Amino acid sequence: MSILVVGSVAFDTITTPFGRVESVLGGSASYFALAASYFSEVRVVAVVGDDFGTEHEQVFKTHGVDLRGIERAPGKTFAWGGHYAENVNDAKTDFTDLNVFENFQPRIPQAYLDSDFLFLGNIHPALQASVRAELDNVRLTGGDTMNYWINRTRAELLETLKLMNVLLINDAEAKMLSGESSLPRASRKVLTMGPQALVVKHGEYGATIFFRDGAFGIGSHPFRAPALPIEEVKDPTGAGDSFAGGFMGYIASQGHLNREVLKRALFYGGVLGSFAVERFGTERLQSLSRAEIDARFQLFRDLTHLE
Amino acid sequence: MSILVVGSVAFDTITTPFGRVESVLGGSASYFALAASYFSEVRVVAVVGDDFGTEHEQVFKTHGVDLRGIERAPGKTFAWGGHYAENVNDAKTDFTDLNVFENFQPRIPQAYLDSDFLFLGNIHPALQASVRAELDNVRLTGGDTMNYWINRTRAELLETLKLMNVLLINDAEAKMLSGESSLPRASRKVLTMGPQALVVKHGEYGATIFFRDGAFGIGSHPFRAPALPIEEVKDPTGAGDSFAGGFMGYIASQGHLNREVLKRALFYGGVLGSFAVERFGTERLQSLSRAEIDARFQLFRDLTHLE
Repeated sequence: MSILVVGSVAFDTITTPFGRVESVLGGSASYFALAASYFSEVRVVAVVGDDFGTEHEQVFKTHGVDLRGIERAPGKTFAWGGHYAENVNDAKTDFTDLNVFENFQPRIPQAYLDSDFLFLGNIHPALQASVRAELDNVRLTGGDTMNYWINRTRAELLETLKLMNVLLINDAEAKMLSGESSLPRASRKVLTMGPQALVVKHGEYGATIFFRDGAFGIGSHPFRAPALPIEEVKDPTGAGDSFAGGFMGYIASQGHLNREVLKRALFYGGVLGSFAVERFGTERLQSLSRAEIDARFQLFRDLTHLE
Repeated sequence: MSILVVGSVAFDTITTPFGRVESVLGGSASYFALAASYFSEVRVVAVVGDDFGTEHEQVFKTHGVDLRGIERAPGKTFAWGGHYAENVNDAKTDFTDLNVFENFQPRIPQAYLDSDFLFLGNIHPALQASVRAELDNVRLTGGDTMNYWINRTRAELLETLKLMNVLLINDAEAKMLSGESSLPRASRKVLTMGPQALVVKHGEYGATIFFRDGAFGIGSHPFRAPALPIEEVKDPTGAGDSFAGGFMGYIASQGHLNREVLKRALFYGGVLGSFAVERFGTERLQSLSRAEIDARFQLFRDLTHLE
């Protein structure tokens, strides 16, 4: 089934203790789309500038990603530069040139209106809501946000949260959004704001999905998936969007929605996130095979499952 | 089978956002012994003062803990006071009165010399080594340490690590001990220092056990157990020692040593740690049942296992 993702396409300049890359393909929609493409049909709504060439298009087309929703605007593509200290997953921003992204108004092509699943990447919550409003066929809406929107556009974010079935954020964002300093309390409070499920990403410690009581199944027990405690992180950029792509992509590949599907999706989110950070930018996501993904899924299972 | 634990018995005065208790039974050996007592025969080597009364003895005796290795010295029992900010697991120390613990020289009763398992609680590494040296029958030695010993008695600690089969420490201690800032590298380095397995405790994110290649089984894949993301932490004091007690206690209850036993032990460690923090001091550990422990083990399994 099809997933529509709305978010950013960007050119990233990234420095980590392992090296540096300049103006490589990035942005939330790029990571998401490539990760999800291993499972499902992906459609992208984003904006790019004149500097977005056929070589960049080709990256997506190789993975069957539908680009009809990528608008070309006069000017330059969103450019971001940042660096990471060793083992610190929070980027320090060197520059943010919004360029054509500054006035981004998502436009949904007619051909996308039947999309089955929707992922609202990390953009202004009012834009997220506007995309959700245009789609009548969506079975499940996932979404992301960040401290910037939590602090500056809280009222609009609270409206948009009512439109999301699953919110995917990290520990700090969950605590900031809820005003609660413990994760158990934070998760309970966020689940009163709209989403039926909350995925909290813990970085190297994996992720937990919390369910509203009775949502997608019986009870309210959470579920935890691991991250990979073996390999070095070369570049953490896009880990969260890759996680979301694996999570949503797997869900969209299944015929039904229940807790077991969401739990397995949490594992696939971790798997795609773990691949993304192995190389710079989207490089690793461009070269995966489904066999590699399934082998790592098995590794994640071995890492956590008793006999 | 029997476990000998050497460590501290103390009276703790603890303040958390949930309340305050004064001079309650604490210390690494107390938490360890109570947690392990649900699985195995436990023997304690420690020192107490005149203020350690029959009511304190009774806490251990109710759980069948052998106290013949508890030395009574003239003076007061080790007393510690500390407080925790909300959701911060690191205690701020208010006072440390070593009292009789200051000149603690562990003495192993004759009746303990056949102990099958040994846990070296968090004391001076030279004292840990002296205890190990007296025991000929030990099948597996677990041990703990902390930043204080890593920084101040590094040479002695490195000698003692060669005597430990399993070291149980937290993320910060693993990084400090190894001088490596990433957990994967830190764990590899610690495993060259002596232990065949390293348990790294991640607080609310659970724990990971890393194996030296080929130790206790085939391969070098780590294994991760969760913590409980549901309940509030009332008092984190003793969580690590309770974890160690559940871990070592379960191992000692099994007839054989292999990876599956160690993996299940990691779960039982998390289970006992999760109970310990539900109330102040050792209160919760005093009142458990094996049925409660097994039910929570199942909850931990449900929290992490796919169908």
